Amino acid sequence: MTAYSKFTAMVTDLYELTMAQVYFQRRMIEPAIFSLFIREYPPHRGYFVSAGLENALAFLESARFMSDDIQYLDSTGLFSRDFLNYLEKFRFTGNVAAIPEGELFFKDEPVLEVTAPIIESQLVETALVNIIHLHVILATKVSRCVHAARGRGIVDFSLRRTHGVDAGMAVARAGYIAGMSATSNVLAGKIYSIPVAGTMAHSFITSFDSEIDAFRAFADIFGDRTVLLIDTYDTLVGAEKAVTVARELKKEGRRLRGVRLDSGDMTALSRQVRELFCREGFPEVEIFASGGYDEFKIDRSIREGAEIDAFGVGTKMGVSADSPYADIAYKLVQFNGRPVMKLSSGKRTLVAPKQVFREERKGCLIKDTITLREESLAGRPLLKTVMQGGKAITPPERLKTIRDRFKTAFGKLPEGVRAIRDPRPYPVGISEQLEALQRRVRHSVIAKELGES
Amino acid sequence: MTAYSKFTAMVTDLYELTMAQVYFQRRMIEPAIFSLFIREYPPHRGYFVSAGLENALAFLESARFMSDDIQYLDSTGLFSRDFLNYLEKFRFTGNVAAIPEGELFFKDEPVLEVTAPIIESQLVETALVNIIHLHVILATKVSRCVHAARGRGIVDFSLRRTHGVDAGMAVARAGYIAGMSATSNVLAGKIYSIPVAGTMAHSFITSFDSEIDAFRAFADIFGDRTVLLIDTYDTLVGAEKAVTVARELKKEGRRLRGVRLDSGDMTALSRQVRELFCREGFPEVEIFASGGYDEFKIDRSIREGAEIDAFGVGTKMGVSADSPYADIAYKLVQFNGRPVMKLSSGKRTLVAPKQVFREERKGCLIKDTITLREESLAGRPLLKTVMQGGKAITPPERLKTIRDRFKTAFGKLPEGVRAIRDPRPYPVGISEQLEALQRRVRHSVIAKELGES
Repeated sequence: MTAYSKFTAMVTDLYELTMAQVYFQRRMIEPAIFSLFIREYPPHRGYFVSAGLENALAFLESARFMSDDIQYLDSTGLFSRDFLNYLEKFRFTGNVAAIPEGELFFKDEPVLEVTAPIIESQLVETALVNIIHLHVILATKVSRCVHAARGRGIVDFSLRRTHGVDAGMAVARAGYIAGMSATSNVLAGKIYSIPVAGTMAHSFITSFDSEIDAFRAFADIFGDRTVLLIDTYDTLVGAEKAVTVARELKKEGRRLRGVRLDSGDMTALSRQVRELFCREGFPEVEIFASGGYDEFKIDRSIREGAEIDAFGVGTKMGVSADSPYADIAYKLVQFNGRPVMKLSSGKRTLVAPKQVFREERKGCLIKDTITLREESLAGRPLLKTVMQGGKAITPPERLKTIRDRFKTAFGKLPEGVRAIRDPRPYPVGISEQLEALQRRVRHSVIAKELGES
Repeated sequence: MTAYSKFTAMVTDLYELTMAQVYFQRRMIEPAIFSLFIREYPPHRGYFVSAGLENALAFLESARFMSDDIQYLDSTGLFSRDFLNYLEKFRFTGNVAAIPEGELFFKDEPVLEVTAPIIESQLVETALVNIIHLHVILATKVSRCVHAARGRGIVDFSLRRTHGVDAGMAVARAGYIAGMSATSNVLAGKIYSIPVAGTMAHSFITSFDSEIDAFRAFADIFGDRTVLLIDTYDTLVGAEKAVTVARELKKEGRRLRGVRLDSGDMTALSRQVRELFCREGFPEVEIFASGGYDEFKIDRSIREGAEIDAFGVGTKMGVSADSPYADIAYKLVQFNGRPVMKLSSGKRTLVAPKQVFREERKGCLIKDTITLREESLAGRPLLKTVMQGGKAITPPERLKTIRDRFKTAFGKLPEGVRAIRDPRPYPVGISEQLEALQRRVRHSVIAKELGES
C-alpha cells in the first residue's frame, strides 16, 4: 500500500515561513514539542477514530522546497537569501509519537506529538493538521454510518461531491478502516486495494429506448454481477421488469444479484419490492438503497423496518455534512525543556510531552488518563514512537491490520459512547503530575506576562 | 496561470466504467448531451458563482488511463480485453458549452453542458461534477463573506482544515474570484499569483521567554510588515506591549502595520484596542481579527460596531461549514437526437441542450430565462462554447479578468437576492418551447414506461 498524498512543503501557511525566518536568524534550534489534539467533540460525537498517520509520515519524509518554490518565495520580498538557502536544504529530522491508526481517541488526548528543532516542527504544521483532521473526521463519520447499519453493508458513493480528490481518497481509506464494505472510487480501489462496487446510473437507463432494454443489455454482459437501478420511471414498475430479467437470467443458469432504489419512500418501497421478489421466487435478490443516506437516515430506516441489505452512502458521509470539521489544534507544549502554554480565553492546552493510558475491564473500555510522557500508570499506553530522525521506524501497516484494530477497539467501547445521538461522555482523566505541572506553568506565565507590562 | 489539478481518468465511480463497457460492446457511439446544474439552493443561498471551469477543461484535455490503471481494471475481472484496449486509447473528443467563471447562475440553470459520444460523456462525469461542485460552493461561500464584510478585507486562513490540498487550492482560487484580498496558502500564492498574507502564531509567542521579546524579534526582521498577535496571554496587556513596539519602530523611522485578535469578545476588544492605539498616537495601526468567522459572525460584528479592518477567515469558510455541499446533478438530457428524462420522484431535469438568457434594466439583473439551445430571446446568452473536439478553444482566462467579471455581475444583483439570510428568489423562467418539449417528452415516457410493463 502506498499513501496517496500530494502534500509538499509548500502546502503551508505563510506565517509558518515568516516565523521560521525569525527562528533561523536568531539561531533558535532548540527542540520544540508540538501536540496535535481535538479540543471539543463535534455535535453527536463522543469519540474519534485515529486515521491518516501513514499519510502524515509520508509527508514528513518527503517534504521539500523545490527550486521554483524558492524562486517564488524570493519574489515575495519577505525572505533573506540565507534563509532561502536553508529552505532549499530543508528536511524534517524530528521524532513523532502517535496513537496508531484504527485506535480510538478522545478529546484533549494527543493523537500525535512532534519533537524537532522548532523551525522544522513549525514548518510542517499546516500539512500535518490538514492530513490528520481530514482522515479523523471522515473515519469517525463512516464509523457512525457502519454502526447505524447494524451489520448491513455500507458502500462509499461520495466521490463526486467530496471536496476534491484528496478528500475522495481519504473517505475511501479512512472509511475502509472504519468498517465500510466497498467504494465506488476506482482510484482508491487501485491505490489502496479496497473492494470496488457499482453498476449503473439513470443516464444508462434513459439512453436506451426502454428501461427493460437497458436492464437486458447490462445483464447480458455482467450476468451474476448485475444490480439493476429500478427507480428511473417508477420503482414498482421497474421492480417487475427486474423480475422479468431475473427469470431470463435463471433460464441461462445465472442469477440477478440485486436491485437499487434511489428515490421515494424507500422504507415502504423496499418492503414492497422484497415482497414482490419473494412472491416471484427470488428471495435472494439483494436490495440496495442510495439517496441522501447518513447515520441518522440509516438508523431511522432500519428502525422503521426497511428491507435493505446494503446502503450506498454518498455526499453526507463524504463531506461529513452534519459536522464537516473538528476543533483540532497543533500547539507548542514545550520549548528547550521549558513547558509552555497560552492563556487565550476558553482554549486550554495541556503542557509538556504526554502519554495516554487506557484501562479495560472485562473486555470493555472504562477510562483513559492523560499523563506526562515519562509516567507509568495502570492500563495500556497508546502513543507509540513511529518516526525517529525523520524516518518512519516501521513500514506502513496493512490496511487490513488497521481495520481489524478499529473493529476490536470499537467492539470494546460502551454502547452509550458509541450512540449516534447525544453520546455519553467517555471518562478521560489527567494524572496528578500533569495537573500539578499544568498549575505551576499557568501561575508562572500569569506572574510573568500579566504581572509585568 | 496553470490549473492545479491532479484529476486523472481514474478519478471515477466504478459504474461509469461498467456502463461504458455496455455502450462499447453495443457500439453505442451516438452523441449524448449531459447537463450540469444545481437542483436547489442550499440554506440561505439565492445565487451561485460559476467557478472551476478552467480546472474542468484541463481535466477533460488530460484525462487518460495509464497502463498500470488498465492492469488494475483487468484485475477486477469485470472488463473484457477489447474494452480495456479502448480505455488505453481513451481521449475526450467532445464539445463543452458553459457559463464563464465569475458569472452568477441560479438553480436549474445549466452551468455546463457536454456533447460527446455517450461513452466519453459518461466516463468524465464523476470528475467534472467533483470539480465544478467544489469550486462553485466555495466561490459562493467566499462571496457571502466578502459581501458581509462591506469593503473590509477577507483573508483566507483555511488551509489547515480544508478537506485536503485540492480543497485548499480551490478555496484560494475560487475565493480570489469572489473578491477576497489574500490567502495564507503559500502554494496557491505561487500557482495562482494570489497575494499571500500572514505573520505569527501563538507558538511563536510562547517559544520566547516573554511576549515582548517575541514581538521585538519579529519587528526587528519584518519592520513595516509586522502584524503582532496580541491575545496569547491577555489581549489588552498584549496591546500595550504592541504600543511599546510601535514606539520603538517609530524611533527607527518604521511603523507597526497592525495587530491581530484571535479570542475573546472581539467586538469589545477591538474597540478598546483601537482606543488605546488612538490615545497613544497610532491611529493608523490596523486591527485584524480571526477565530471562527464566517459571513454571519462578520455581519454581526460589524453591526455591533467592531473596529476591525480585515478578517482572517478560516475553517467555516474553507469547508463551507453551514452548507458543505449542493444538490448538483449531471444528467443525460438528449441521446442520439432524442430528448430524454427520468421521472424519479421530486427530481426534475430539463430535457435537451439549453441556453440561458439574462435580462438587465438600468444596470440591475431582472430575470433569467432557460431556453432550448437554438432559441433566441431578449437578453444576453450566458452559455458559450468553450471546448470543441476535446480542445479548449481559448487559453485560460486571467484570474483578474474572472474576478472583475464577478465584481460586475455581483454589483448588478438585487440586494434582496444577495442577502446572507433568507434571500429573495431570483426570477428564472422557462421558455414556452422548452416547456412544450418538456411536456411532450414526459407524456411519451409515461406512456411507454408506465403504460406497458
